[in-house]
Amino acid sequence: MTETFLIVGGDAAGMSAASKAKRDDPDLDVVVLERGEWVSYGACGLPYYVKGEVSDLEDLVAVPPESFVQERDIDLRTGHEATAIDTETRQVTVETETETYEQSYDHLLIATGARALEPPIDGLDRGGVFTLHSMAAGREIRAFVESEPDLERVAVIGGGYVGIEMAEAFRAHDLDVSLFEMLPQVLPTFGGAVGEAVAEELREQGVDLHLDTQVQRLAGDERVQAVETAEESVPVDAVLVGAGVVPNVELAEAAGIELGATGAVATDEYGRTSAPDVYAAGDVAEMDHVVTGEPTHVPLALTANRAGRAIGQTVAGDRTRVGDVAGTAVLKAFDLAAARTGLTDEGEASEAGFDPVSVSITAPSRAHYYPGGTDLEITMVGDRETGRLLGATIVGEEGVAKRIDTVATALHAGLTVEEVEYLDLAYAPPFSPTWDPVLTAAKVLGGKLG
Amino acid sequence: MTETFLIVGGDAAGMSAASKAKRDDPDLDVVVLERGEWVSYGACGLPYYVKGEVSDLEDLVAVPPESFVQERDIDLRTGHEATAIDTETRQVTVETETETYEQSYDHLLIATGARALEPPIDGLDRGGVFTLHSMAAGREIRAFVESEPDLERVAVIGGGYVGIEMAEAFRAHDLDVSLFEMLPQVLPTFGGAVGEAVAEELREQGVDLHLDTQVQRLAGDERVQAVETAEESVPVDAVLVGAGVVPNVELAEAAGIELGATGAVATDEYGRTSAPDVYAAGDVAEMDHVVTGEPTHVPLALTANRAGRAIGQTVAGDRTRVGDVAGTAVLKAFDLAAARTGLTDEGEASEAGFDPVSVSITAPSRAHYYPGGTDLEITMVGDRETGRLLGATIVGEEGVAKRIDTVATALHAGLTVEEVEYLDLAYAPPFSPTWDPVLTAAKVLGGKLG
Repeated sequence: MTETFLIVGGDAAGMSAASKAKRDDPDLDVVVLERGEWVSYGACGLPYYVKGEVSDLEDLVAVPPESFVQERDIDLRTGHEATAIDTETRQVTVETETETYEQSYDHLLIATGARALEPPIDGLDRGGVFTLHSMAAGREIRAFVESEPDLERVAVIGGGYVGIEMAEAFRAHDLDVSLFEMLPQVLPTFGGAVGEAVAEELREQGVDLHLDTQVQRLAGDERVQAVETAEESVPVDAVLVGAGVVPNVELAEAAGIELGATGAVATDEYGRTSAPDVYAAGDVAEMDHVVTGEPTHVPLALTANRAGRAIGQTVAGDRTRVGDVAGTAVLKAFDLAAARTGLTDEGEASEAGFDPVSVSITAPSRAHYYPGGTDLEITMVGDRETGRLLGATIVGEEGVAKRIDTVATALHAGLTVEEVEYLDLAYAPPFSPTWDPVLTAAKVLGGKLG
Repeated sequence: MTETFLIVGGDAAGMSAASKAKRDDPDLDVVVLERGEWVSYGACGLPYYVKGEVSDLEDLVAVPPESFVQERDIDLRTGHEATAIDTETRQVTVETETETYEQSYDHLLIATGARALEPPIDGLDRGGVFTLHSMAAGREIRAFVESEPDLERVAVIGGGYVGIEMAEAFRAHDLDVSLFEMLPQVLPTFGGAVGEAVAEELREQGVDLHLDTQVQRLAGDERVQAVETAEESVPVDAVLVGAGVVPNVELAEAAGIELGATGAVATDEYGRTSAPDVYAAGDVAEMDHVVTGEPTHVPLALTANRAGRAIGQTVAGDRTRVGDVAGTAVLKAFDLAAARTGLTDEGEASEAGFDPVSVSITAPSRAHYYPGGTDLEITMVGDRETGRLLGATIVGEEGVAKRIDTVATALHAGLTVEEVEYLDLAYAPPFSPTWDPVLTAAKVLGGKLG
C-alpha cells in the first residue's frame, strides 16, 4: 500500500522535505497542507522587496506552486489549515474555507514555522502598525510606503535582523526612521563590538537610534500617531514591529508532542519528535548546537531547508541526520555587514562549561597598499582549557559574510585556535592581507590562551 | 654566551623569523643578510604598482628597514650576500661590495626565496624584455611603461599568476597585449573550468590570447621587435616573461644540504633541513601538503610568513611546527577572481592514492532575487573510497576568494564531502543563496559519491 507523508507548512522546511522525499521515493504519497496561499518563498528577502530592490513579490518565490504539483507530483493544498493531530490514529484535522476533513498519515512533518512576536506594548492594533512575518504583510507594507500620501516618519521597534533591515528599507524611501531597542545595544546576539559598529552606521545613515529604551504605548486614534516611552513621545506615521519570532508550536503541543527548554519542538538527530513517525523542522523546531551539543532554537533559512531535506530523505528510506547548527548568521546593515557564529558571549560560553577567553582585533580587508580596502573588526572566543575555538563575530564593509564561514567550518570540525592559526587561506592583494584577518585574530587569541 | 640566529634573505620568511625570534628571546643575536636593498616587501603587489593602482614602490614595504633595526633590534645588513655555508664550522661566507667576511651562527635560516624562471627562449637578453621577480624590476617596468614614447604592443609569456596580473596591468595603460601560454589553458593548476572562464575574460578584456603556443625566439636587434612561434611572428615593443619561479637552492645545495623531489630544499615539520640547526623557509623550501601528507613546493606569501614565524619561535626556544599547505591560492583576473585549494586535478589525486570523483556546478553568488549577483562556477573533488574532500576550484566575479577558504578549512580538518554539506554557513540575500554554492557543490558531489 502507498504510504502517505503528510507535511504541515509549505515553506522552506516543508517543501524541501516534500521535494526530497518524492524524488527519492516516487511511490510515496506526499501531501502538503499550507494554510496560506504562498509556498516556498524567501521571507528573508521581504525587507529588500519593501526597499524596492526586489521589484515583484513573486520574485521571492524559489519554486512556483504549479511546479511542485505538475513537475514534482506533490499534492500541495494551499488554504488548508491543520487544526489538530491525533498521534494515536495518525490523523490530522484539516480546515478549509468550506470544509473540515481528516487526513491520515504514515509519516508526519510539522513545519509550521514561527510568527512575529507581539511585545507587551499597548496599541499594537492601531492602523499603520505592521509586522513583517508573511508575504502578505510585505505586500501591505510596501503598498503603504508607496501610496500613503503623508507618510514621513516611521518607527521601528526592535534592533534585531528585521528591525535593522527594515530601517534600511524605509530610509531608501526617504522616510525619517526612529529605531527603538530595549537592550543597550542592537544585535545583542552579535556582541558589543558589532553592536557598536552597527549603531554608529545606523546613526550615520540618519536613523534616530533609541537604545536601552522600552516602548510602552503606541498612541493615536485609529491610526498610530506616536511612540511613547517613559521619557518621551515620538510622533510617527507608521510603526514596524520586529521584536523577534516565536515558534508556532500550538498544533504540536496540543497533540501532546514534547517541547524543549527553548520553547520550540524538541527533536532528535533525525528531526524526530516525541511522537512516533512525527518529525519537526524549521523555525518551529530545536536543533543541536555544534559547539555545546545542546538543543538550541535558531530559526534561520538554511537550517530549515537542510533539516527538511534530511527528513525527506529519511522518510524515503535513507535515514539521514538533520545536522547541527553553529548559530551562523550574517546581516547587511546599510553599508556594513555583521556576522556571527558559535558561542560569542563569554557568559553563554561559561554557562556551557567553557572557560572563555576572547580578543578583538582590527585588520584590513585587503593588502595594506591595495586601494579600496576597509577595516574589519573580529572578536574571537576560545576555551582556555582545551584551546578549542568557540566562536567569532566580524563586522566591516567587505569580506565579512564569507569570512565567518571559515570560522563556522572550524567550529564544525572542532578545531583549536592554534589549528585555525595554521589554516592555509587564500591570499592575493585585492582580497586579503597576507595573514587573513581570521588568521590574525586566531594568532592574537592563541597568544592569550598561552 | 649570546647565541646568534643568522638569516639569509630579508623578505617574508626571513624577516618574519627575525622579528618573532627577537621578540620571544630578546637576548638572541639576530643577524639578517640581504643581498639586495629591499626587505620585507610585498612582491605580490608589484603588478598593481606597474598598473598604477599602487602609486609608490615604497607602499609595498610592510615594515621599513629602520624599524627592524631601531625598534626590533635586529642586525639587518642589506647589500650583504651569503656566498657559502660551512655546516661543520657553522660559518657563512658573506660578500659585500667592499669586503668578504665569515659570519658564525648557532642557528641558520636559509630564506633565499625564488627567482623568475628563464624559459628556453632565444633572445631573452634583448632590451625591452622583463621579468618581475624583484622590486627593482617592478620599478624598471613601470618607468618603461610610463616613459617609453612608442610603446604600444606588449607580449606576456606565461599564463600563470604573474602573466595574467601583468596583462591586466598593461591593459590599464592602454597597451595592446598578446599573451602566450605553451599549455592548452591558462592557470593550469586551477583546472579546466577556471582556465576556460579566465581565458574568456582575458579575450573580453582585449588580450590577444595564444594558447598551446610555444614561443621560440624573441627577435630584434638590441631591442625586442617580435615574438616568434612556430606559426607566426607577432610584432611587439616589449616582453614580460612570467614563466614561473625556481627556488634559489644553490647556496644550500653547495653546502651539502638535501633537496627534495620538487627541487626545493627538503625540510621536516619544524622547517629543519638535513644539516644540524639549519632551517629553510619560504619560496626556497618544501612544505607538507595537508591532503597528501607529501612534500610539495608552493611558493606563496602566507606560507613563507608563517613558516618563518614558526622557525623564529622554535629558535627562541618554543618548538613550533611550520604547518601544512593546502595549495590555496586566489588570483584577480580583470573582473574575475579565480581560486583553488587542495587536489583539484584527478590525475594528481589518483597519483596520491585517491579515487577521485569531481563535479562542476554553477550557482549564484547572492539570493536569486537580490540584485547584483553573478554566477560562480565551482569544481569540487572528493575521494570515492573514504568520502573525503580533496579540493576545489572557484571562479566568478564576487565572493570567490573567501569562499575557497571554507574549502581550505575543511581540507585542514580532513572533513568528508558529506560533512561539508552539513556546514552551517552564513546566509543573507545580499551575500549568498540559502544554500551557499560551496554547500550545493558538496551536495551534488555527495550524491555522486553515493
